[in-house]
Amino acid sequence: MRKIIALASLLAGFAMVVPAQAQFAKPEDAIKYRKAGFTLTAAHFGRLGAMAQGKVPFDAKAAAESAEVLAVVSKLPFTAFVEGSDKGETRAKPEIWKESAKFKEAADKNMAEVAKLAAAAKTGNLDNLKAAFGSAAPTCKACHDNFRKD
Amino acid sequence: MRKIIALASLLAGFAMVVPAQAQFAKPEDAIKYRKAGFTLTAAHFGRLGAMAQGKVPFDAKAAAESAEVLAVVSKLPFTAFVEGSDKGETRAKPEIWKESAKFKEAADKNMAEVAKLAAAAKTGNLDNLKAAFGSAAPTCKACHDNFRKD
Repeated sequence: MRKIIALASLLAGFAMVVPAQAQFAKPEDAIKYRKAGFTLTAAHFGRLGAMAQGKVPFDAKAAAESAEVLAVVSKLPFTAFVEGSDKGETRAKPEIWKESAKFKEAADKNMAEVAKLAAAAKTGNLDNLKAAFGSAAPTCKACHDNFRKD
Repeated sequence: MRKIIALASLLAGFAMVVPAQAQFAKPEDAIKYRKAGFTLTAAHFGRLGAMAQGKVPFDAKAAAESAEVLAVVSKLPFTAFVEGSDKGETRAKPEIWKESAKFKEAADKNMAEVAKLAAAAKTGNLDNLKAAFGSAAPTCKACHDNFRKD
């Protein structure tokens, strides 16, 4: 049974990686794509974070707009860690492909928390935003710590 | 009256440029942000184009997913042509800032056509996709021709 679970989670890891592959003509395209997704994710995560942390005044409209963007762009990078895109202009660690089930778990957790953050940011309530930001931020860091080169 | 219209369209041009400025700590951040937006726009525009042009088989689900992304990411670059971001690692021509009303017009046209393309791609009908792609593509090219360095 344990073997089946291990195999299933391995396959689930591959499932995330494989289908998108056909979308990129070259590995460099996948790298450029996921970096673009992370750039936009970081920008809008940062805007929400600045409000959550009181660095800028809370602006419900701006928060909702960033949430809208974040909900879409934060998922994109994870479609682009395709086979062969471990080489080149990337800080992606080999572990992404070597421990793909672990990476998928971290990615799924991040996507779930960011989706919650986006939903919270749309409520127009600063306390909701603060709480969701506090839960989401560590899931970004966890992935960076384990799967991104310095 | 003509002066008022000219002034109004000038202000409209600024209106697009100014509010986003505070969102970027440095001009480089704005450049990186808009490039990321264009990268994702081009990727998903390209996926829809490949279907519209019969280079890959029409896939209604994939088309709808790309449409969803495109509707959001295609608008982002135009929030990031902020003052001071004409210098650096950018192919943006000075005309973007010197003829800001003209640039805004081109950007608005592109955003409108891409929004229509995204809507068409969600209908699940290849003919709708083809027609909308045919209308949208020239609005990308027009802006590249006039406002982007080779």
